[in-house]
Amino acid sequence: MDMLQQTFLMSGKVTAKDSAVTIHLMNGFYQDQFRVNDSEDSIRYWQVYDRTTNELVPNSHWRYVQEAGNVLVQKAKHYHEYTVNFLAYRVWEEISMYNHVTNHWTKEHLMPVDPRYEESREYIYGWLKEWCETHPATTVVRFTSMFYNFTWMWGASEYNRTLFSDWGSYDFTVSPKALDDFKDAYGYALTSEDFINQGKFHVTHMPAGQRQKDYMDFTNQFVVNYGKKLVELVHQYHKKAYAFYDDSWVGVEPYSDRFPDFQFDGLIKCVFSGYEARLCAGADVETHELRLHPYLFPVGLGGAPTFSENGNPTLEAKKYWRSIRRALLREPVDRIGLGGYLHLVEDYPDFCDYIAEIGDEFRSIKEMHRREKEAGGSAYTLKVKVAVLHSWGKLRSWSLSGHFHETYMHDLIHINEALSGLPVDVSFISFEDVKKGMLDQFDIVINAGKAGTAWSGGDAWKDAEVVCAIKEWVTKGGALIGVNEPSAVEGYADYFRMASVLGVDEDTGAKVCHGRWQFEEIDIEGLIPDGCTFSKKENMFIVDCKSAVLKSEHHIPEMVIKHDGKGMGIYLSKFEISNANTRLLLNLLMYGKGMSMNQKYLTDNVDTECAFFPACKQMIVLNNSESEQSTVIKTDSGEVCVDLEPYETRFVEL
Amino acid sequence: MDMLQQTFLMSGKVTAKDSAVTIHLMNGFYQDQFRVNDSEDSIRYWQVYDRTTNELVPNSHWRYVQEAGNVLVQKAKHYHEYTVNFLAYRVWEEISMYNHVTNHWTKEHLMPVDPRYEESREYIYGWLKEWCETHPATTVVRFTSMFYNFTWMWGASEYNRTLFSDWGSYDFTVSPKALDDFKDAYGYALTSEDFINQGKFHVTHMPAGQRQKDYMDFTNQFVVNYGKKLVELVHQYHKKAYAFYDDSWVGVEPYSDRFPDFQFDGLIKCVFSGYEARLCAGADVETHELRLHPYLFPVGLGGAPTFSENGNPTLEAKKYWRSIRRALLREPVDRIGLGGYLHLVEDYPDFCDYIAEIGDEFRSIKEMHRREKEAGGSAYTLKVKVAVLHSWGKLRSWSLSGHFHETYMHDLIHINEALSGLPVDVSFISFEDVKKGMLDQFDIVINAGKAGTAWSGGDAWKDAEVVCAIKEWVTKGGALIGVNEPSAVEGYADYFRMASVLGVDEDTGAKVCHGRWQFEEIDIEGLIPDGCTFSKKENMFIVDCKSAVLKSEHHIPEMVIKHDGKGMGIYLSKFEISNANTRLLLNLLMYGKGMSMNQKYLTDNVDTECAFFPACKQMIVLNNSESEQSTVIKTDSGEVCVDLEPYETRFVEL
Repeated sequence: MDMLQQTFLMSGKVTAKDSAVTIHLMNGFYQDQFRVNDSEDSIRYWQVYDRTTNELVPNSHWRYVQEAGNVLVQKAKHYHEYTVNFLAYRVWEEISMYNHVTNHWTKEHLMPVDPRYEESREYIYGWLKEWCETHPATTVVRFTSMFYNFTWMWGASEYNRTLFSDWGSYDFTVSPKALDDFKDAYGYALTSEDFINQGKFHVTHMPAGQRQKDYMDFTNQFVVNYGKKLVELVHQYHKKAYAFYDDSWVGVEPYSDRFPDFQFDGLIKCVFSGYEARLCAGADVETHELRLHPYLFPVGLGGAPTFSENGNPTLEAKKYWRSIRRALLREPVDRIGLGGYLHLVEDYPDFCDYIAEIGDEFRSIKEMHRREKEAGGSAYTLKVKVAVLHSWGKLRSWSLSGHFHETYMHDLIHINEALSGLPVDVSFISFEDVKKGMLDQFDIVINAGKAGTAWSGGDAWKDAEVVCAIKEWVTKGGALIGVNEPSAVEGYADYFRMASVLGVDEDTGAKVCHGRWQFEEIDIEGLIPDGCTFSKKENMFIVDCKSAVLKSEHHIPEMVIKHDGKGMGIYLSKFEISNANTRLLLNLLMYGKGMSMNQKYLTDNVDTECAFFPACKQMIVLNNSESEQSTVIKTDSGEVCVDLEPYETRFVEL
Repeated sequence: MDMLQQTFLMSGKVTAKDSAVTIHLMNGFYQDQFRVNDSEDSIRYWQVYDRTTNELVPNSHWRYVQEAGNVLVQKAKHYHEYTVNFLAYRVWEEISMYNHVTNHWTKEHLMPVDPRYEESREYIYGWLKEWCETHPATTVVRFTSMFYNFTWMWGASEYNRTLFSDWGSYDFTVSPKALDDFKDAYGYALTSEDFINQGKFHVTHMPAGQRQKDYMDFTNQFVVNYGKKLVELVHQYHKKAYAFYDDSWVGVEPYSDRFPDFQFDGLIKCVFSGYEARLCAGADVETHELRLHPYLFPVGLGGAPTFSENGNPTLEAKKYWRSIRRALLREPVDRIGLGGYLHLVEDYPDFCDYIAEIGDEFRSIKEMHRREKEAGGSAYTLKVKVAVLHSWGKLRSWSLSGHFHETYMHDLIHINEALSGLPVDVSFISFEDVKKGMLDQFDIVINAGKAGTAWSGGDAWKDAEVVCAIKEWVTKGGALIGVNEPSAVEGYADYFRMASVLGVDEDTGAKVCHGRWQFEEIDIEGLIPDGCTFSKKENMFIVDCKSAVLKSEHHIPEMVIKHDGKGMGIYLSKFEISNANTRLLLNLLMYGKGMSMNQKYLTDNVDTECAFFPACKQMIVLNNSESEQSTVIKTDSGEVCVDLEPYETRFVEL
């Protein structure tokens, strides 16, 4: 039991109405998930904080009362709030816990073993060896995660079951031993507060500080070092080792520099969306596999019926496939599959037929890529190199933290989803990359998100080197596309550090008495497709008369372009995925690059898209809508008209 | 010319594309308003800033090129932005300028003389003395402002005419002499950047720092000291001296501690709204006068017609009177008037009739207050003592900065307007007052506004003494009403420092992965009148299961009550003035105090209100709507039914 995985928890806040405060540690936490680790080794890492003043309470002012599971704080200040950061064992592995609770399982509670200890590593190794030996017929071993779950803390009340969940978090890897090892390796000690962070933890959507980055690097190294031994073991038995990149990201991020060290033979990605398909397709492994949706479960996301009364799994499959298919045109994957209870499909012959159809389409697309590659070509791409700029850079290519329905509130996931099927070259870069001079490789840089988030960048924008590098790059011809609160950080003359480039800024309150430039909307022919949606963001204003406003509402600019030297800034107050908005993004990429928007191998109907395979002289034309569509495509062989059924995938010989 | 009033201006931002940067100071400024003061005395206060890094550029790196009106910066860093803070004379008094430009006047440009200089003070004094002597028939002298205009900076482009305007700002009082005098008086020197503040200046809607407060205090003292000499002079000629509190607030704030020192005989307030009537009524002067609207001008606010084709001045008068009338029931004023060109009313006999009607109503209300006072009573008030808590406290009682239509975007002006006609006792207090122990005097504290503003409080909430004083006061029975982002400040475990009291908090991004408490809406009988409006504010969540949600949309709480000890917190995500919402506020005040909402002398129809004069045994019942209304009022003499015509004012004997 003392080798189970752990986590730091922060107790509830207790207000001192007396000079002594009693804090029951487990108040509010799900008792079946956590048990206080009150060993001496653990308690030395506990911390008590006065959250009213952000002050650490000296150890001499508090003590742990083991029998009651309480911390007793002395010399408390009246009406100040106190919390305890403490370590807890996780006595129920969370996926097991979820399945038990949701599906009323009654099996044994699984427990997560921490491979930090030599004994547990030996146990795991031995277990896997034994398994390999006793399963000679199995040719592929799927590692669902490497050791650590994504963070999922449960609450005691059924009205507040999820306290915190983050697919990208490393919180569930911590232990006194990990902290001691970290100190030896990095020369400084982390504290509980480095994890607890005032109860906020460190969500993937926020920029990481250096201490968090160091801890992630430290853990990543550990996971890869031990993980590759297990992969080696699997290889010794002449089996393939695949990574299933979904339930946990800890240390297994496919775009980390260390990922190839695992020597995985394949990567399986659970996908609802195009960006997830690209995440999988772009990873450096031999075999790329997608796990499609819907899951073969009676109910799906949020409890909605799938393979049960009122469910329509075929329609669900169509919608997911529509999103994924366009991404597959740009970069190939090798395999697709489904998961869940196979018997459920028995009563849904139309679902089986449709999956067979998807299978055929998938194989045809894959075959097209193969033939094209064989002929020395690749799917046609416009000469536009796009970089998405955010705090995580390459490590979090394509994905933010979780699936689309978990991250829909972030503009960037909409942008990544739009990009996933566009015929352009896409990279993901960090602010460090900007400082290393990488901007010269790109025509377009996109920065999108709410102020302070990892996606917008937060304090990274305080760095004058970053600011000046981008300004210079724009002056010399680059186009910066900013969405929502790009480059926003408090403390400077402009809230958007790129205000002078983007042509807009946002008033956070201090400029409410400042006049606003009047403007009239201008039009750029062919730039904004019919059906695009825009969104009013309060307190936005243009910074000077050179800002061209293309869309506005009640004198608030929503879309702005400002030419600056040879380049330009482009601002959108919001980006939401839709067929028309996806085409708008493509148009902005071409316009930003200074290209005509009247390019070959683009459909003239936003509900359709196409990919061109030049060596094979073939096109694949997609109907991304649920109604019939017609489109005309300019090609080197003249204009091609295509009429498409709803959702159709059409192969066209040129 | 060297004794004209001045101001600090910040040049436009210029990006360095070379190591030398030329900044033309007057670029973007209205040439007829400003002239660079490039005297040696002035230039020693100029500052050049690198706005990319917030660094002051050493004086040795820049020089002023007088002939060109440029500052030349050397050793500039590539792609950094530079600005110059400089002093400019204001060569055209702004009200004169506005009237010339708007009404095509062609008279001489008036210039604002700065009384900082002994010579100008002597000139002003002599001019006023001469005027008093030559105008023996005039019995009241109206001081439209004391010396300094409100800040109104104009831009060169007609697309950007107003660069900055703030009725409460002290920016137009500055000069090298003022700064030198300040240093002598306060022992430290202010810099240009203390005014420019990165180009943001210091808008009244934002909390003032100590340096700004010191400068305001210094200037206030100067204005009062010299102003009262002019008032004395007027008194010597047996004339009355009235202050007109509208065009400028500098040093003349009626709720400043020094205001009585002027010895004004009267205060005239230009009013559109009830809160302005209360501001006037509550000032410590003998005579309180309101200047009603509409102005007798062809066009009114924003260029809409008044006394011209398509204008309806009578309807305008009715709407303004409706707002003002209810405030007059609570606290009497002595006189009303109108302003503008009298001849314009000739063609509007219905307007003249309606103003006569207003006059009669006004005199009747005034007479009621007089009789009640004579009988030893006053208008009946519920036993509810309300404090509005914000950064400015008493100094900015009732008003924020300007009229309703200039400040409608702030929740607090809606609240002040609602309060202005409610039968409760209202005070305005600052965070310093909280620390002085003033909370015990109040049943309800209201804190309302966007995070970081003067109205919400900004950094004042970092003070643990403030936080704990309010928590203790609530525990002992107080009710805190928070609106929008009350007590919000970054850097703590909670974003709302009063989250545990109000029952809600806001996620600014770091808690996007944190679970939310599920809740069901509860109802409190009689609390929420029909017709109330609520507004969804994204990212709000309840902090625990004790938070009772009364209104929500898509699982986002909009109205929450949390009981805490003997008191409670009440949260509203927005407050917008309307008859129903005004009644909601009254209900919340009663509920917060722990009173029944079924009180005597309240109407049972939200479109109506009444005031009771106990000594006179009379009620005044108002119809605040444009349609007929009926209402029942519980009184000590039983229930009274009243049927009212649109907008009617009814006097009812009990």
